[in-house]
Amino acid sequence: MMRIDVLSLFPEMFEGVLHSSIMKKAQTNGAVSFEVTDFREYSTDKHHKVDDYPYGGGAGMVLKPQPLFAAVEALSEGLEKLPRVILMCPQGEKFTQKKAEEFAADEHLVFICGHYEGYDERIRQHLVTDELSIGDFVLTGGEIAAMAIIDSVVRLLPNVLGNVDSPVLDSFSTGLLEHPQYTRPANFNGLEVPEVLLSGNHAKIDKWREEQSLLRTFERRKDLLQDAPLTEHQQKFLVQLKREKK
Amino acid sequence: MMRIDVLSLFPEMFEGVLHSSIMKKAQTNGAVSFEVTDFREYSTDKHHKVDDYPYGGGAGMVLKPQPLFAAVEALSEGLEKLPRVILMCPQGEKFTQKKAEEFAADEHLVFICGHYEGYDERIRQHLVTDELSIGDFVLTGGEIAAMAIIDSVVRLLPNVLGNVDSPVLDSFSTGLLEHPQYTRPANFNGLEVPEVLLSGNHAKIDKWREEQSLLRTFERRKDLLQDAPLTEHQQKFLVQLKREKK
Repeated sequence: MMRIDVLSLFPEMFEGVLHSSIMKKAQTNGAVSFEVTDFREYSTDKHHKVDDYPYGGGAGMVLKPQPLFAAVEALSEGLEKLPRVILMCPQGEKFTQKKAEEFAADEHLVFICGHYEGYDERIRQHLVTDELSIGDFVLTGGEIAAMAIIDSVVRLLPNVLGNVDSPVLDSFSTGLLEHPQYTRPANFNGLEVPEVLLSGNHAKIDKWREEQSLLRTFERRKDLLQDAPLTEHQQKFLVQLKREKK
Repeated sequence: MMRIDVLSLFPEMFEGVLHSSIMKKAQTNGAVSFEVTDFREYSTDKHHKVDDYPYGGGAGMVLKPQPLFAAVEALSEGLEKLPRVILMCPQGEKFTQKKAEEFAADEHLVFICGHYEGYDERIRQHLVTDELSIGDFVLTGGEIAAMAIIDSVVRLLPNVLGNVDSPVLDSFSTGLLEHPQYTRPANFNGLEVPEVLLSGNHAKIDKWREEQSLLRTFERRKDLLQDAPLTEHQQKFLVQLKREKK
């Protein structure tokens, strides 16, 4: 069973996400256990302070090393293997599906979530194993970013998705963006489903989907085309697309 | 006041995030109002179904157009201006700080969150104004991605951050990654703060920070250097860095 610890000053933020839907099921199935800890509990300061002014001046507060070092030490106690300690921060490596797969093979992950404060550099250098960011946008804290990573890792664990597993959202596993999907009714307020999908001709449907998947990737995410394994039909279609767009 | 509506099949996921910390404060201050709606309520199907099998076959389920069209119509009723309708999906445009700033200037945002299902294409084509993704990783649903976007937008609204506003995390506003930060104690278990930060010499501190900020960006995110406005000192330092790394 994977163990996931979260260190945050706002543990209540995690309640909805860790106890609904797939994350709830993953715990019930014994695939993962979650523990969210307020690291303020580990502050030895008499007022339980966790942050302080930056040396050298400047705006904003900086998270002190002591509470986080103590919290990680406490939850590593008695363990044979040290956990992976992941710092959520805008300066971190960009999180990708490849990293999710790497984490899914681990046994114990610890997420450190700061909240508008910066981190004392000694935390980065001597406590954490990974610094991660989910994208080039600013959040009020690392909590939601940690939730995103936890969700993407836990869904990869054995016995989690089961038959709700759907390739529909798995764009990044085929290397291309997903083709358009349609469901009933065939005519919704005058908006119709493409005829080919109603034809029952599966060879034609597959071909249409291959083309549409490539077309969508070509229009929206050309960068993915470099590494995507294309079918023979897709290779021809791509040549045609490039010709048309000239 | 900005109005944010979320359409999701798991409204309970949002409770912790929308009612803690800055998001809570933003509502109390009257900067934003949130409403999370289970769009299953809008299904006219007798079993309140919201999804159905894909036309043309294949694994996974597809969200039907009817409940989502009806939900958006209901929450737009009586409004002069149609809301911006944002679909969370892996095929969407990558969310960035620029988009957060654009959304922060709007009055009414609606987020549609699917949950492992795909979306009927007619939803993309005729209901939504934006399709967004937060990164190249697969989530079990759009909920956490929507939370990330909401957080990054709401913190930009007037009267939200106030004096907790901290440039420490605002890496993407300066164009470079933040320099290292340190706080007390100056010696933590033998790990020391760089002397320059204790010197009280502010010209030297500023110079050190400019260099460290550039160095970190050079090592971790060379892509940001293309657009970042550099000081004269940083330009010289960059030339030196490039020479050393040869």
